[in-house]
Amino acid sequence: MNSVSILGGSGYGGGELLRLLLAHPCVEVQQVTSRSHLGEYVYQVHPNLRKRTQLKFSDPSALEPVDILFLAQPHGQAQRHIEEYTGVAQKIIDLSADFRLRESALYQKWYGEQHAAPEWLNKFVYGLPELHRAEMATASYISGVGCNATASNLALLPLVKADLLDSSSPIFIEIKVGSSESGAEGNAGSHHAERANVIRTFSAFGHRHTAEVIQELGLSEVSLTMTAVDLVRGVLATAHAKVKQGVTTKDLWKAYRAVANENPFLRVVKEQRGIYRVPEPKILAGTNYADLGFELDDSNGHVVAMCAIDNLMKGASGSAVQCMNLMMGWEETTGLEFMGLHPI
Amino acid sequence: MNSVSILGGSGYGGGELLRLLLAHPCVEVQQVTSRSHLGEYVYQVHPNLRKRTQLKFSDPSALEPVDILFLAQPHGQAQRHIEEYTGVAQKIIDLSADFRLRESALYQKWYGEQHAAPEWLNKFVYGLPELHRAEMATASYISGVGCNATASNLALLPLVKADLLDSSSPIFIEIKVGSSESGAEGNAGSHHAERANVIRTFSAFGHRHTAEVIQELGLSEVSLTMTAVDLVRGVLATAHAKVKQGVTTKDLWKAYRAVANENPFLRVVKEQRGIYRVPEPKILAGTNYADLGFELDDSNGHVVAMCAIDNLMKGASGSAVQCMNLMMGWEETTGLEFMGLHPI
Amino acid sequence: MNSVSILGGSGYGGGELLRLLLAHPCVEVQQVTSRSHLGEYVYQVHPNLRKRTQLKFSDPSALEPVDILFLAQPHGQAQRHIEEYTGVAQKIIDLSADFRLRESALYQKWYGEQHAAPEWLNKFVYGLPELHRAEMATASYISGVGCNATASNLALLPLVKADLLDSSSPIFIEIKVGSSESGAEGNAGSHHAERANVIRTFSAFGHRHTAEVIQELGLSEVSLTMTAVDLVRGVLATAHAKVKQGVTTKDLWKAYRAVANENPFLRVVKEQRGIYRVPEPKILAGTNYADLGFELDDSNGHVVAMCAIDNLMKGASGSAVQCMNLMMGWEETTGLEFMGLHPI
Amino acid sequence: MNSVSILGGSGYGGGELLRLLLAHPCVEVQQVTSRSHLGEYVYQVHPNLRKRTQLKFSDPSALEPVDILFLAQPHGQAQRHIEEYTGVAQKIIDLSADFRLRESALYQKWYGEQHAAPEWLNKFVYGLPELHRAEMATASYISGVGCNATASNLALLPLVKADLLDSSSPIFIEIKVGSSESGAEGNAGSHHAERANVIRTFSAFGHRHTAEVIQELGLSEVSLTMTAVDLVRGVLATAHAKVKQGVTTKDLWKAYRAVANENPFLRVVKEQRGIYRVPEPKILAGTNYADLGFELDDSNGHVVAMCAIDNLMKGASGSAVQCMNLMMGWEETTGLEFMGLHPI
Repeated sequence: MNSVSILGGSGYGGGELLRLLLAHPCVEVQQVTSRSHLGEYVYQVHPNLRKRTQLKFSDPSALEPVDILFLAQPHGQAQRHIEEYTGVAQKIIDLSADFRLRESALYQKWYGEQHAAPEWLNKFVYGLPELHRAEMATASYISGVGCNATASNLALLPLVKADLLDSSSPIFIEIKVGSSESGAEGNAGSHHAERANVIRTFSAFGHRHTAEVIQELGLSEVSLTMTAVDLVRGVLATAHAKVKQGVTTKDLWKAYRAVANENPFLRVVKEQRGIYRVPEPKILAGTNYADLGFELDDSNGHVVAMCAIDNLMKGASGSAVQCMNLMMGWEETTGLEFMGLHPI
Repeated sequence: MNSVSILGGSGYGGGELLRLLLAHPCVEVQQVTSRSHLGEYVYQVHPNLRKRTQLKFSDPSALEPVDILFLAQPHGQAQRHIEEYTGVAQKIIDLSADFRLRESALYQKWYGEQHAAPEWLNKFVYGLPELHRAEMATASYISGVGCNATASNLALLPLVKADLLDSSSPIFIEIKVGSSESGAEGNAGSHHAERANVIRTFSAFGHRHTAEVIQELGLSEVSLTMTAVDLVRGVLATAHAKVKQGVTTKDLWKAYRAVANENPFLRVVKEQRGIYRVPEPKILAGTNYADLGFELDDSNGHVVAMCAIDNLMKGASGSAVQCMNLMMGWEETTGLEFMGLHPI
Repeated sequence: MNSVSILGGSGYGGGELLRLLLAHPCVEVQQVTSRSHLGEYVYQVHPNLRKRTQLKFSDPSALEPVDILFLAQPHGQAQRHIEEYTGVAQKIIDLSADFRLRESALYQKWYGEQHAAPEWLNKFVYGLPELHRAEMATASYISGVGCNATASNLALLPLVKADLLDSSSPIFIEIKVGSSESGAEGNAGSHHAERANVIRTFSAFGHRHTAEVIQELGLSEVSLTMTAVDLVRGVLATAHAKVKQGVTTKDLWKAYRAVANENPFLRVVKEQRGIYRVPEPKILAGTNYADLGFELDDSNGHVVAMCAIDNLMKGASGSAVQCMNLMMGWEETTGLEFMGLHPI
Repeated sequence: MNSVSILGGSGYGGGELLRLLLAHPCVEVQQVTSRSHLGEYVYQVHPNLRKRTQLKFSDPSALEPVDILFLAQPHGQAQRHIEEYTGVAQKIIDLSADFRLRESALYQKWYGEQHAAPEWLNKFVYGLPELHRAEMATASYISGVGCNATASNLALLPLVKADLLDSSSPIFIEIKVGSSESGAEGNAGSHHAERANVIRTFSAFGHRHTAEVIQELGLSEVSLTMTAVDLVRGVLATAHAKVKQGVTTKDLWKAYRAVANENPFLRVVKEQRGIYRVPEPKILAGTNYADLGFELDDSNGHVVAMCAIDNLMKGASGSAVQCMNLMMGWEETTGLEFMGLHPI
């Protein structure tokens, strides 16, 4: 058994992580911290954990040494205290945005401020196993992933790996998201009466997760357009791009199947019958799957590449646990076996 | 044309009132106040009013004289300033809870504090036209109604008027409500991620609106049990009671039809076919209707009496406009003709 | 008073039309037909009409002469019986897809079958007042509009009218829609348990409404990608295009304002504060508004043009009534004054 | 490893059962039958199972011998073929209503028809472990449970066991349910456009599950009032009853805690802070928990007893697996460890 702690456990990402770690056969949760809920039972904040743990939120300033430390704080915290945290654990997985980007200039461009610990940027591996599995085996520090970046990166991964994209065409990624993306704190627009029934394009360009798509896929002209819809968990990224001349649906099938075969949590969904013919986040709640799909317009090379995930799982805490498994040399899918529900 | 102003126009009740008054053929809106949104266009807060009015929120401390003044402030304000308001307008309709109860003792019991202007309690007519239509014709001051009280009162009105209830049996009223009931400010539980998909019984007993049911129907043992469900607008009150021995379904039909015939906004819904066989708030959004229904278990006298309304309309601003019409001698339904949408 | 009848009144489009016509000050509804609901009260199918009309569904084969006949049948019916219908009324508005396209070849391409009455195609005016207002004044026959086509056409209209688009770039239109789009009959995927919480891209390309965008805006490479989300009424079209070099946000403002000023139901929504900063169908339920918005990425000319409508109103029956008003020489907004609800 | 088959696996109950059995460490699924989906991959109907099983639906008339047979057919089938099924397996768990009642007269009263195999009624144990755990250890045949009956029975169980109820007062149980209760086939009212946003009291009295409450708790005057709300999975039963004179909140705490301590899937939820203070089905999706709560009005003995469950889990397939565990002598919670999600 390895000891793990979660720094910042009262948010949605931290709660989801805690749920996964409590059920994980190789670890034991030692501390979960929260300043605002200090001393409360964790199940009072995360009611799904009732009768499953008697843990209480502990003080973030009193971290005890552990084997693995997860950082689930608001952005900006980890980069300010990373030296301190490395004294607590030899293995760190940071779910925040602080160590996702490798270049401080890219960080500054998208986050609008200087990075507080640029010398640490290269010590972290970007936390998407589908792109960095090998490096993780020897890593000590792994970053989290942006949920929208993950849906985008995985939607396009087969096309990029098989080099099928026409690089002269821009890529427009349309992303629809649920309300858990705004975090447990929410904002004025999160009030159910304002947020229910919405189709709200809250960001046409400039979403910070774009930086992770640029960095990880090496794409130049790519935009993420974000639309909130009435759902709690889930992201669907729909990328519009052009394939190279001559590329056929058969080529696409080959590229997608190859990627799905190499990665336990990737599935290709492209059915001719039934209700669920395309990737849909609805049935992924609680799972670590990323469902991929595509459609090609032969007449003009327009490809629609889709990826559905649960933003709190594959888009955050699920990937983090998957990273832990790889970093620790455990079976990649350990603790992530939940199949998801239908209907839901 | 009569001039009207709304004191406190940035909440849901105030916004709905403004929508109704802007379209009302007999009035002209002079001022809508808001301290927090002072100077903003009202359509920036109530986006449905865009291109319909160029009104801006004005300062509540600079009220100008008008024919009719609507008070749509948080509870507790009106009772503190009522003297001042009567200097602004000769006719006042207060949507808050401040002047709904006739006895200060009842107010103190249910609101947990002394009333600030008990001498004014008897100057107000309770704002439910179905119970006080005649008095309204000569009234100067009319109170609002609690939305849950209204659904409860109208559900039971036919039974009470026809004297069909067994007074020795308690009455349990189960009320299901949408998220707009919590007001524009909301609370921790209003976050979409926490409020979507709920069936949350947030109050088993003791809801303040109970006092209005006790007062208006003269019932002694009555309880309101409140459950939040996933809907923005709407209330369904389902009252469980016992009828006097010998009362039949035919008697109930007679009682309900009589009430529906006397009141333009009451309808009996009790169909044998189709999808909409019982009262449902879903199709009442934006309308002033109260749909009534009932079911009798002949074997034991258990009657289930139902009433569906839009909490912001018949449960608040719609009834207030209906009261204004009666107070001013206008056609009762003026400005309240919207039929509602299907599907929605 | 002019007499009107609706042929095919039990579907969602027919029901919405009936609601509008019952409240319209210049017309009297004579017949509403339905084969499957023959003899039933219309309010048994359209429950919002209870206590508002005692009309019953009549036999479609027993149409009486009227001034204006609305056709609200399934696609394919109108083209087979148009000669007969012109004997019933001198003015016809057909909500189906049968007479939307001017060229039979275009019809055949997108609908996969020969048109049954190609000689009638040029006798109809395409039913979007914002594009054909002048022609409608003298028209006898007006077609309906596809709801998705309408959202797309209006999203791009300012850009096309002001000639700001780079014609060498493809236009990708991402459309999110509610469940009323699938019609009152629905399909396997319409079951609430399968349809709730969805983000389901049911059509990547090839939606039939594309033909109306091609025809009306003269665009060549344009695609509509359709995604179902959890909402009953509403469409948001988000068009991704490139503007000509040098086009600025100021140019776009000018183009959008010009179009909004010329058209009573178009509004530009582009706010810097508040919850509702962009076009959203949520607040348009029951209204005839089309809310337009845009965002320009200066660095690469990528424009995101948005249009939100209620698919049953501006996308179908509302536009049809607007067309009637223009065809009859009445005020364009008559009977379409509903402001919409907030919150909802 | 024990072999299990599911007869009738294309519905929601069958699908949920299959999900549980595929992950259960002690069994291997041999056959899942479906007449209408014969030959299809099970994941085409239950999309959550993609990449988790390559099983195809097999012919129900070609059942092979297994250790345990689950019947998940429409009501009425099992009673007609029970002799045949006992030839297939020595252990049978029937999820339908066919063998839930012990007396054929009770069956006839509530189901309106004679039972086809009354001699088998006493061979089945009623499938609620919280009431029949001991009998299950030696049982060969176990029935399913009605989901609404289960929520009702568990809400009242602590009160009945501790003998706290005033037996002279009627018990009114208000039940709110999600759309998965109507089954995968659905009905006219299941169309998302008609079913979304509903508060629809579809049955005031006479729901068939009432019979199971009468039988299992020995209550005489009890009614179930059923209301559909906008949710896919979940039931909340809220029972209104009177306690015996002198019963206090302390007595209730004792009674509820005792029951929760004896049963691994029962939890008492009664918090003074946080968002989740009462039982709510929202956070139970996919879990086998039944969350219990209560509130007592000291002034009149009115108790509100609540139970929230996932209708497809504790209300059907989860309880069935729990029964299997007990019947086979396995740990009661095996395969039912999922904690549920928050937020969702």
